[in-house]
Amino acid sequence: MDAHAAAALGAGIAAGLAAFGASLGNGNVISKTIEGIARQPEAKATLQSTMFIGVGLVEALPLLSWVVGLLLMFTVK
Amino acid sequence: MDAHAAAALGAGIAAGLAAFGASLGNGNVISKTIEGIARQPEAKATLQSTMFIGVGLVEALPLLSWVVGLLLMFTVK
Amino acid sequence: MDAHAAAALGAGIAAGLAAFGASLGNGNVISKTIEGIARQPEAKATLQSTMFIGVGLVEALPLLSWVVGLLLMFTVK
Amino acid sequence: MDAHAAAALGAGIAAGLAAFGASLGNGNVISKTIEGIARQPEAKATLQSTMFIGVGLVEALPLLSWVVGLLLMFTVK
Amino acid sequence: MDAHAAAALGAGIAAGLAAFGASLGNGNVISKTIEGIARQPEAKATLQSTMFIGVGLVEALPLLSWVVGLLLMFTVK
Amino acid sequence: MDAHAAAALGAGIAAGLAAFGASLGNGNVISKTIEGIARQPEAKATLQSTMFIGVGLVEALPLLSWVVGLLLMFTVK
Amino acid sequence: MDAHAAAALGAGIAAGLAAFGASLGNGNVISKTIEGIARQPEAKATLQSTMFIGVGLVEALPLLSWVVGLLLMFTVK
Amino acid sequence: MDAHAAAALGAGIAAGLAAFGASLGNGNVISKTIEGIARQPEAKATLQSTMFIGVGLVEALPLLSWVVGLLLMFTVK
Amino acid sequence: MDAHAAAALGAGIAAGLAAFGASLGNGNVISKTIEGIARQPEAKATLQSTMFIGVGLVEALPLLSWVVGLLLMFTVK
Amino acid sequence: MDAHAAAALGAGIAAGLAAFGASLGNGNVISKTIEGIARQPEAKATLQSTMFIGVGLVEALPLLSWVVGLLLMFTVK
Amino acid sequence: MDAHAAAALGAGIAAGLAAFGASLGNGNVISKTIEGIARQPEAKATLQSTMFIGVGLVEALPLLSWVVGLLLMFTVK
Amino acid sequence: MDAHAAAALGAGIAAGLAAFGASLGNGNVISKTIEGIARQPEAKATLQSTMFIGVGLVEALPLLSWVVGLLLMFTVK
Amino acid sequence: MDAHAAAALGAGIAAGLAAFGASLGNGNVISKTIEGIARQPEAKATLQSTMFIGVGLVEALPLLSWVVGLLLMFTVK
Amino acid sequence: MDAHAAAALGAGIAAGLAAFGASLGNGNVISKTIEGIARQPEAKATLQSTMFIGVGLVEALPLLSWVVGLLLMFTVK
Repeated sequence: MDAHAAAALGAGIAAGLAAFGASLGNGNVISKTIEGIARQPEAKATLQSTMFIGVGLVEALPLLSWVVGLLLMFTVK
Repeated sequence: MDAHAAAALGAGIAAGLAAFGASLGNGNVISKTIEGIARQPEAKATLQSTMFIGVGLVEALPLLSWVVGLLLMFTVK
Repeated sequence: MDAHAAAALGAGIAAGLAAFGASLGNGNVISKTIEGIARQPEAKATLQSTMFIGVGLVEALPLLSWVVGLLLMFTVK
Repeated sequence: MDAHAAAALGAGIAAGLAAFGASLGNGNVISKTIEGIARQPEAKATLQSTMFIGVGLVEALPLLSWVVGLLLMFTVK
Repeated sequence: MDAHAAAALGAGIAAGLAAFGASLGNGNVISKTIEGIARQPEAKATLQSTMFIGVGLVEALPLLSWVVGLLLMFTVK
Repeated sequence: MDAHAAAALGAGIAAGLAAFGASLGNGNVISKTIEGIARQPEAKATLQSTMFIGVGLVEALPLLSWVVGLLLMFTVK
Repeated sequence: MDAHAAAALGAGIAAGLAAFGASLGNGNVISKTIEGIARQPEAKATLQSTMFIGVGLVEALPLLSWVVGLLLMFTVK
Repeated sequence: MDAHAAAALGAGIAAGLAAFGASLGNGNVISKTIEGIARQPEAKATLQSTMFIGVGLVEALPLLSWVVGLLLMFTVK
Repeated sequence: MDAHAAAALGAGIAAGLAAFGASLGNGNVISKTIEGIARQPEAKATLQSTMFIGVGLVEALPLLSWVVGLLLMFTVK
Repeated sequence: MDAHAAAALGAGIAAGLAAFGASLGNGNVISKTIEGIARQPEAKATLQSTMFIGVGLVEALPLLSWVVGLLLMFTVK
Repeated sequence: MDAHAAAALGAGIAAGLAAFGASLGNGNVISKTIEGIARQPEAKATLQSTMFIGVGLVEALPLLSWVVGLLLMFTVK
Repeated sequence: MDAHAAAALGAGIAAGLAAFGASLGNGNVISKTIEGIARQPEAKATLQSTMFIGVGLVEALPLLSWVVGLLLMFTVK
Repeated sequence: MDAHAAAALGAGIAAGLAAFGASLGNGNVISKTIEGIARQPEAKATLQSTMFIGVGLVEALPLLSWVVGLLLMFTVK
Repeated sequence: MDAHAAAALGAGIAAGLAAFGASLGNGNVISKTIEGIARQPEAKATLQSTMFIGVGLVEALPLLSWVVGLLLMFTVK
């Protein structure tokens, strides 16, 4: 396996794992938010603003990992 | 394994993991929404709007990972 | 392993993982809907409409991943 | 491993994973339906109609994945 | 690994995974039925008819996957 | 790995997975039956007849998978 | 890996998985029986007769899989 | 890997999996018995006799699998 | 596999695992925060400040691991 | 890999899995015994005698598997 | 695989596993802290000081493992 | 891989799995003991004596497996 | 794979697993401490002193394993 | 892979698994102790003495396994 092949394979793994983790983490955060709104509909604004911050923080590192995947694809090749 | 083969294999892995993660995350979010509506049918509009935002946020990164898969398939080859 | 073989193998993995994830996610959504209907049969219409939207959203990404599988099979070969 | 062999192996993986996922998802949906009927035998018609729709939706993607398996077997070879 | 060997191996994987998934799914459905009958012996006919439909639906896709296994064994070879 | 070897290995995998799945599924069904009888000893006949049907349905597909194993062993070789 | 080696390896896998599954399934059935007897010592005969039938049904398929292992060992070689 | 090596490796796998499964199954059965005795010390004889039968039934198949291991070791070599 | 290929593959693994772990850890922290706010909306400021500190601490090590991935990609190559 | 190497590797696997399984099984049995004694210190003799029998039965098969490991090490080599 | 390649791969594994473990451990510690603050907002100072000590202790070993990764990358190469 | 290498690798696996299993089993036994003492400090002597016997029985087989590791290391080489 | 490469790879595995285990163990200990303090803030000193001892004991073996990693890296090479 | 490389790799596996298992086992024991002290601060001395004995017993076998790692590293090479 030469370097180009490894870079292509590594990009797939990095992007796939990042998407997998971010989906699970976001799903956890958002489903808790919906649960909270279903109990107290008047707290919707408060919970949603925290949710937006939380989703942003959760997606920070997977996005960086996605960048690694792109770098592997375009820099190495 | 040369670079073309690795790109084809990596695209399959990236797209497969993205679809797997997004399905689990979305299933979690939506089933909580349905649970909430079943308890309080009058909160349907409130919950569904949050659900649409949530599903969009969950699918953001898997979509990017799917793009990586397409890039691997069409750029490398 | 040459590129054609990797594409065929990658298509199988992408389609298989997509079907696996979508089945689990859909099963989760639909079983919650049935649970909700069993508790409140009068809310059937409300829950089923949300279920249809939810199933559509869950199946969005696996379908894209299935397209990747077809592309790998017909474009690469 | 040449392309014919990879196609045969990929077809097995795609069909196997699809059958595995669909069985788990369907088992989840149907067992919830039976649980609901056992509690409220008078809601049998309502629950069963939702069950039929749900099973159809769950089996949609595994069937597509099964088609990918057949395509791999007959087109590639 | 030539095509005949991969077909034989793929047939084993497809049939094995199908049998594994169907057993788990059926076991889930039937054990819930027995649980329901144990609670309400007078609902035996209602539950058993749903159980027969459910088992048939669960076994639909594994049977198709089993057909893929047979096709791999007899068509490829 | 030639075709004969793959067939022998595939037969072992198919038979092993079938036996593994059937044992778990049957164990689930039968233990629920025993639990039901322990609660209501007078419902023994009703539960056991359902149990026999259920075990038969659970073992249907593993048996077919076992047949695939035998076919791989005697037809391919 | 020639056919004799694959048969020896396949026999080990088939017998091992069969023994593993049967142990878990039987352990599940028998421990439920003991739990039932501990609650109602007067129902010992009823529960034990069901247990014997259940253990026999659970061990049916692993025994067939064990036969596959022996056949692989003595027929192929 | 020639046949002798595969037989030695297969014997290790068969014996190891059998011992692993039997330990878990037996541990499950016996711990339930002890739990039952701790609740009703007067039912010790009843529970222990069932435990002995159960342990014997659980260990039946792993013992056969252990025999397969010995046969692989002494017949093949 | 030469050093360049291993570095590209190692960068993918490091970045992917870091993103996977950080997503799970952050999702856990943030969902607990949202749960807490849903119960006591007046404690929002207190909880959010702790959440920001916590997310920063959780992301410290994955970020370092992401740096390792970049170093592997740019220093080794 | 020749027969001697496979025997050495197989012995390690057999002994390792046996020790792993026996530890889990024994830990389960003994911890239940201690739980029982903590509740009823006067039943210590009764529970401990059952515990000794149980530990002996649990360790029967791993010991046989350990013998297989020794046989592989000294007979094959 | 020569030593340079193994060092690059080992650095990726060490850093990735360290980041994965630290994220899970920290997430556990911090989410418990937030849970505690949500119940007793007046104990914020007490809990946060313990949290800072705990996070430091949790991150001690992953940091050392990250150092091993850097050493592998810069000393071996 | 020659016999010496396999023996060294097998020794590592045997010792590692034995230590892993024994730690889990012992941790289970001892934590139950501590739980029991925390509830009834006056039963400390009774519980500790059972704990010592239990730990000895749990560590019996891993020790034998550790001996297998030493034998592999010193006899084979 | 020569000895230098194996040592580099082994060092990565040893350090990574040690960091992973220590993080989980410490996270468990510290989160229980915080839970305890949140319930009884007056017991902070008592619990923290036990926590420090416990963390030290938990980190004893991973540190030794980290030493093994360093030895592999500097002695073997 | 020659003997020196296998010894280096085996040492890493043995030390890593030992550290992983000991961390989990110790974490279980110590967290139970802290839970006990949080409930009854006056039983601190009693519980801590049992904890020290327990930690010593848990770490006995991993330490032996760590010795195996050192032996593999210094005797084989």
